[in-house]
Amino acid sequence: MTIREQAMEAAAAARKLAAVSPAIKNKALEAMADALLAEQEGILASNAKDMEAGKAKNMKASLLDRLLLTSARLADMADGLRQVAALKDPVGEIIGGCTLANGLTVTKIRVPLGVIGIIYEARPNVTADAIGLCLKSGNAVILKGGSEAIHSNTKIAAVLRAAAEEAGIPAGSIQFITSTDHAAVQELITLNGLVDVVIPRGSGRLIQAVVGNASVPVIETGVGVCHTFVDAGADYAMAEAIIINAKTQRPGVCNAMETLLVHKGAVQEFLPHMLQALKEKGVQIIGDETVCAMDKEALPATEEDWATEYGDLRLSVKVVENTDEAIEHINKYGTKHSECIVTRSFANARKFQQMVDAACVYANASTRFTDGFQFGFGAEIGISTQKLHARGPMALPELTTYKYLISGDGQVRP
Amino acid sequence: MTIREQAMEAAAAARKLAAVSPAIKNKALEAMADALLAEQEGILASNAKDMEAGKAKNMKASLLDRLLLTSARLADMADGLRQVAALKDPVGEIIGGCTLANGLTVTKIRVPLGVIGIIYEARPNVTADAIGLCLKSGNAVILKGGSEAIHSNTKIAAVLRAAAEEAGIPAGSIQFITSTDHAAVQELITLNGLVDVVIPRGSGRLIQAVVGNASVPVIETGVGVCHTFVDAGADYAMAEAIIINAKTQRPGVCNAMETLLVHKGAVQEFLPHMLQALKEKGVQIIGDETVCAMDKEALPATEEDWATEYGDLRLSVKVVENTDEAIEHINKYGTKHSECIVTRSFANARKFQQMVDAACVYANASTRFTDGFQFGFGAEIGISTQKLHARGPMALPELTTYKYLISGDGQVRP
Repeated sequence: MTIREQAMEAAAAARKLAAVSPAIKNKALEAMADALLAEQEGILASNAKDMEAGKAKNMKASLLDRLLLTSARLADMADGLRQVAALKDPVGEIIGGCTLANGLTVTKIRVPLGVIGIIYEARPNVTADAIGLCLKSGNAVILKGGSEAIHSNTKIAAVLRAAAEEAGIPAGSIQFITSTDHAAVQELITLNGLVDVVIPRGSGRLIQAVVGNASVPVIETGVGVCHTFVDAGADYAMAEAIIINAKTQRPGVCNAMETLLVHKGAVQEFLPHMLQALKEKGVQIIGDETVCAMDKEALPATEEDWATEYGDLRLSVKVVENTDEAIEHINKYGTKHSECIVTRSFANARKFQQMVDAACVYANASTRFTDGFQFGFGAEIGISTQKLHARGPMALPELTTYKYLISGDGQVRP
Repeated sequence: MTIREQAMEAAAAARKLAAVSPAIKNKALEAMADALLAEQEGILASNAKDMEAGKAKNMKASLLDRLLLTSARLADMADGLRQVAALKDPVGEIIGGCTLANGLTVTKIRVPLGVIGIIYEARPNVTADAIGLCLKSGNAVILKGGSEAIHSNTKIAAVLRAAAEEAGIPAGSIQFITSTDHAAVQELITLNGLVDVVIPRGSGRLIQAVVGNASVPVIETGVGVCHTFVDAGADYAMAEAIIINAKTQRPGVCNAMETLLVHKGAVQEFLPHMLQALKEKGVQIIGDETVCAMDKEALPATEEDWATEYGDLRLSVKVVENTDEAIEHINKYGTKHSECIVTRSFANARKFQQMVDAACVYANASTRFTDGFQFGFGAEIGISTQKLHARGPMALPELTTYKYLISGDGQVRP
């Protein structure tokens, strides 16, 4: 099948899937979880081929670890599907409405988006996650995974598709693109009228390529140049704990901190100890002039540093005049993901939360909380950094749209 | 200024505008309405230049009428701005939130999108409408109007901008692109990071060009291939009234009807009289075989007809086996705008409303009601035919996004 044919099949399936009951969708999700475990041997064998190819290509250890599947990881994927089954079904929720003066009733009802394209990189667990969330929200899904995981993903998608269809999900609702050709992506992201939205998940490069070349709607996810600003007179112990957590707990993820901004009034009392604590955790400081003067091991920050998502243990550090300069810096260099102020000042917290343009703006807490599970959504398909449709952690409702049902008894427009 | 410089100015202004109080925004809208009337002479003189150029280019009478401004039309535009002032301010509404187990409070608050680009054609009233709605919803706006109305639009935008800034709106919040070069559109729709969304308003050709070439998010509006399906045993007098209204009241607009679908069981009793009534209203029938056999004046419909938004008094007519075939036809040829069933059957109405994939699905009422004012929204920036972000009539809330404000007392992620 061509990719257009796959999309046509998905679009036809999506219309039927929109009307499938929650009971059948949940039965399918449970069956899919069972199938992952039942077909474990085949899945691990497929994964072994990808691992072998990865090693042959001298793939980095961290990437190989992302690629690796084990019994335990498959069990986690299966658990994930069962958790999705347990979530509230978003489809059919009445989210508004009214009766007009002329007697027409207008009902605003939540419905699936239709066909969702997911473009992702080396993590095979995304295959199961994305299929589970799209299915629960009544959407057909077309998956395009990275070539590194092609054997694992092809097998997982086939296992899940078979189990879903067996449980009553319309045939064609789950599509996996087996071509590893880059042209496949280009075709997928220009299938207007067949694909309702594409969500790229992965590196900034991948996301920018999709955003730049798509003609179907895209939800931009993930890139996070996140800041923490420490105000003068803040609780400096609290600031230190938040910063160590935001920077070092898991430096590779998008809600980790990349830049520390420090009020000039906090420099003397707070900064030397903070830099020391960071260095003890293995953090490489990249500072402005004040910071470099204070710490001889710090590297001088360039203009590019302020806009860089390091994704590792590097941290840029800058001293600012006041909250306004911190806000200005963040609005200039941030990626509208997650930003934090540590302060005792009610007025500064209020101003920071109002004026910083980002999906999640924190006062006195780590940016690492930006996550669908942490927010209590029970799921996450990604973290949107654009403003259209969804912002911040996206869960099931963010995979839906709505329509208006208007009922009358012969009304015509005067 | 280049278009990028205009966008940078708009983005800087947008950050300030997001925090401007409702009182100042409303004062500005009233002042803008006053200014339209006070500067009437200059605006009408600018419009006269456009009208002259239009006539010299042999512009169609209907287009010249759209282009024409009069005292009465300016008064309507001013009234429109005052009506927008009177609407509820969407910015700052708390639309969700919770307190997490760890004590973090999460508040989901409605905020402006930021910078909205509006690309439109010959109607100068769109200039005032769009500026008013964007301003009220706290967004900076960049307008790119059609070359036919360049003098009128330039003048209106200048008058409104001056009045708004005088009333306290941040300078740069209202940008008008004076270049009539097509490259200006291309630049505007690829200013990622500066422009948050582009809304094209006008012909299908304009909209498709924007959708196909934009890298910033787009909201697709307006194209409507709307159907009315008459079920067997429906109240045929009601069906006739709805169809005459949907087709003939204002055939040029997007919520007007383009295709009539008739259940085979309704053909004998309903169709001859219906066709006669349509023809008396000047409607040209383009029918399938059954219809052409019944009406010798009907033209035979081609495959292309079923997908055509005539925008005039042509109507395609097809006989279908049942509700399922009607739904299938609509989902194949419709543009997801507005669709109607006329029926006495509860089950068929329910199935039609559930299975038809469109922004507005009617039972027993004219599709002409798809309109922000008719729906009681008090405003309309366009009718979205895509599923992402907003669907159907878009008013003030649809010009906003949200952010999460998270407040704590030192929480870090375990």
